[in-house]
Amino acid sequence: VISKNKLKYYSSLKRKKNREREHRFLIEGVRLCEEIFASDFEVETLLYCPALLISQRSKDVIAKFQQRGTPVLEIDVKSLQQLSDTVHSQGVVGVAKMHDFSWEQIIEHRPHILLAIDQITDPGNMGTIIRTANWFGAAAILLSENCVDVANPKVVRASMGALFYIPIFEIINFKERLHELKKMGYALFAADPVGELIYSTAPFTTKNVLILGNETTGVDAEIKMMANARLVIPRQGTGDSLNVAVAAGILLAEMKRNMPV
Amino acid sequence: VISKNKLKYYSSLKRKKNREREHRFLIEGVRLCEEIFASDFEVETLLYCPALLISQRSKDVIAKFQQRGTPVLEIDVKSLQQLSDTVHSQGVVGVAKMHDFSWEQIIEHRPHILLAIDQITDPGNMGTIIRTANWFGAAAILLSENCVDVANPKVVRASMGALFYIPIFEIINFKERLHELKKMGYALFAADPVGELIYSTAPFTTKNVLILGNETTGVDAEIKMMANARLVIPRQGTGDSLNVAVAAGILLAEMKRNMPV
Repeated sequence: VISKNKLKYYSSLKRKKNREREHRFLIEGVRLCEEIFASDFEVETLLYCPALLISQRSKDVIAKFQQRGTPVLEIDVKSLQQLSDTVHSQGVVGVAKMHDFSWEQIIEHRPHILLAIDQITDPGNMGTIIRTANWFGAAAILLSENCVDVANPKVVRASMGALFYIPIFEIINFKERLHELKKMGYALFAADPVGELIYSTAPFTTKNVLILGNETTGVDAEIKMMANARLVIPRQGTGDSLNVAVAAGILLAEMKRNMPV
Repeated sequence: VISKNKLKYYSSLKRKKNREREHRFLIEGVRLCEEIFASDFEVETLLYCPALLISQRSKDVIAKFQQRGTPVLEIDVKSLQQLSDTVHSQGVVGVAKMHDFSWEQIIEHRPHILLAIDQITDPGNMGTIIRTANWFGAAAILLSENCVDVANPKVVRASMGALFYIPIFEIINFKERLHELKKMGYALFAADPVGELIYSTAPFTTKNVLILGNETTGVDAEIKMMANARLVIPRQGTGDSLNVAVAAGILLAEMKRNMPV
C-alpha cells in the first residue's frame, strides 16, 4: 500500500516546477511503460490499479519491471486517478527519473543531424517533433528557453516514448550554443515560411542543425540571421503555414535523403 | 439579446449528432472567423461578448460580418462560455452552415491529387491533415466511415480554417468510391509503415490518390490490396512509426514534387 504522503508527492509531479526540482516525472499507460523499460531511463516505482488493468499487455509489463527489481505498488482507483492525466486510464503509472545525457559525448561522435527548437509551446507539436526526430535519426535535440516542458504528460504521450531514446538538452544560452555549433562546422538551417531557399535545393552537409521556431512567430529573428540558410516549403494550394511538426518531418526526411553521406 | 432557447440550440451544436441533423456547426476565435469570412461558407449568426473582446482584430472581423449583413448578436460571458470549447475564449463564436461541394464538379477538373482518409480518429491529426492537404493543393478529401467528425471543434481549430477551403466528402461506400477512382485512371497510393515501395521512388502520375489510415491499425487491408502501391517512409533512427499527419506531409510534398506535370 502507498502512504498518503507518498501519493501526494507523486501527484505533485504533475506540475512542471516540482518535476524540475525533483528531477522526476510521471509516465502513464502500457505503451509508454514498455518503451521506458527498453530505454536507459530509470523507473523508480511502478504503480498499478488491479481494477483498471484490463489487458494482458499491462500485466506483462508490470511483471517485467518486477523481475528487474523495480518497486511495484498496488493502488486503488481513486489514487491512480489522482496521478492520471487521461480520461480512460490503463491502470499503470510509472515514476521515472530524468536521465542526464552528455553533450560532449554526443558531439564527439560528429552527428550528422541535430535539431534545435526555439520556443515551441504546444505539447502535441513538441511530442510529435521528438517522435519525428527520433524516426529520422537526429542525434539530439536542443531546446531554447520558453519551450513547453518535455516531461509534460501530453508531450510524453505525443512522443510515443521517443523521448526515452533521443537525448534532449534544455539550454540556457540557446543562441550561444548555436554559435558554437556553427564554429564547429555545423550548417544551420532555419525553417522559415518566408525563407529564401526552397528546402529541396538546400546544400545539406555532413553536419546539419535544423532549427524550428515558435508556432506563431517562427524562429527568432537573430537566430534566422545566424543560420546559413532559411528554408521554405513552397505552398502549392492555400493556407498561411504548415504545422511545425509536419514541416519538421518534411525537412528531416529531405535532409536525411540529400546529405552527402 | 439572445433567447434562452436560441442559446440552447446553438450549444446543442457542440454534439456531433446535432451538428449532423442541423447541418450547422460552431466556429470559435478571431482567426477562424477571419478564415470563414474569406471562404464560401455561410455564417448564419455571429455571437460576441464585449467583455471578452480584447483585440482590435476581433472588433474588425465582427464589423466585416456586420457590413456583409450577417446577424451579429451580443451575449454575456456566461452564455459565450456555454458555446466555447476553449479555456481562454477570444469572445467570438460563429454559427456556420455546412457547405455542400459537388463531387462531379471536382472530378470534371481532373485533379492531380485527392486524399482519402480511412478511419482517422484523433481530432488534432485530422485537422492537421486537412491543413496540410490544403497547403499542398489536394483538390478534395474523401473520408471513410468512423472518422472523427470534421466539424468537431478540435478538428476545426487544428485545421486553422483550411476546412473552409478544401472540399471534404463523408463517404458511405469508401471502398467503392476508391474502386471507381481507380477505374477512372487514378493511381492509388496507400501510406503503409510496412509497404513495399520507398515513397521517394513512387511512380506518381497526373492523377493520384493518397490513402492514409487509422493511427493504430493503418489503412484497411482490403484497401491496401486495392492500391497500386503501398508507400513506406524508411526509418533512419528508432521508433515504431511516424505520426500520420507528419507522414501525410512528407508524402504530399513528394507527390507534388515528383508528379509529371
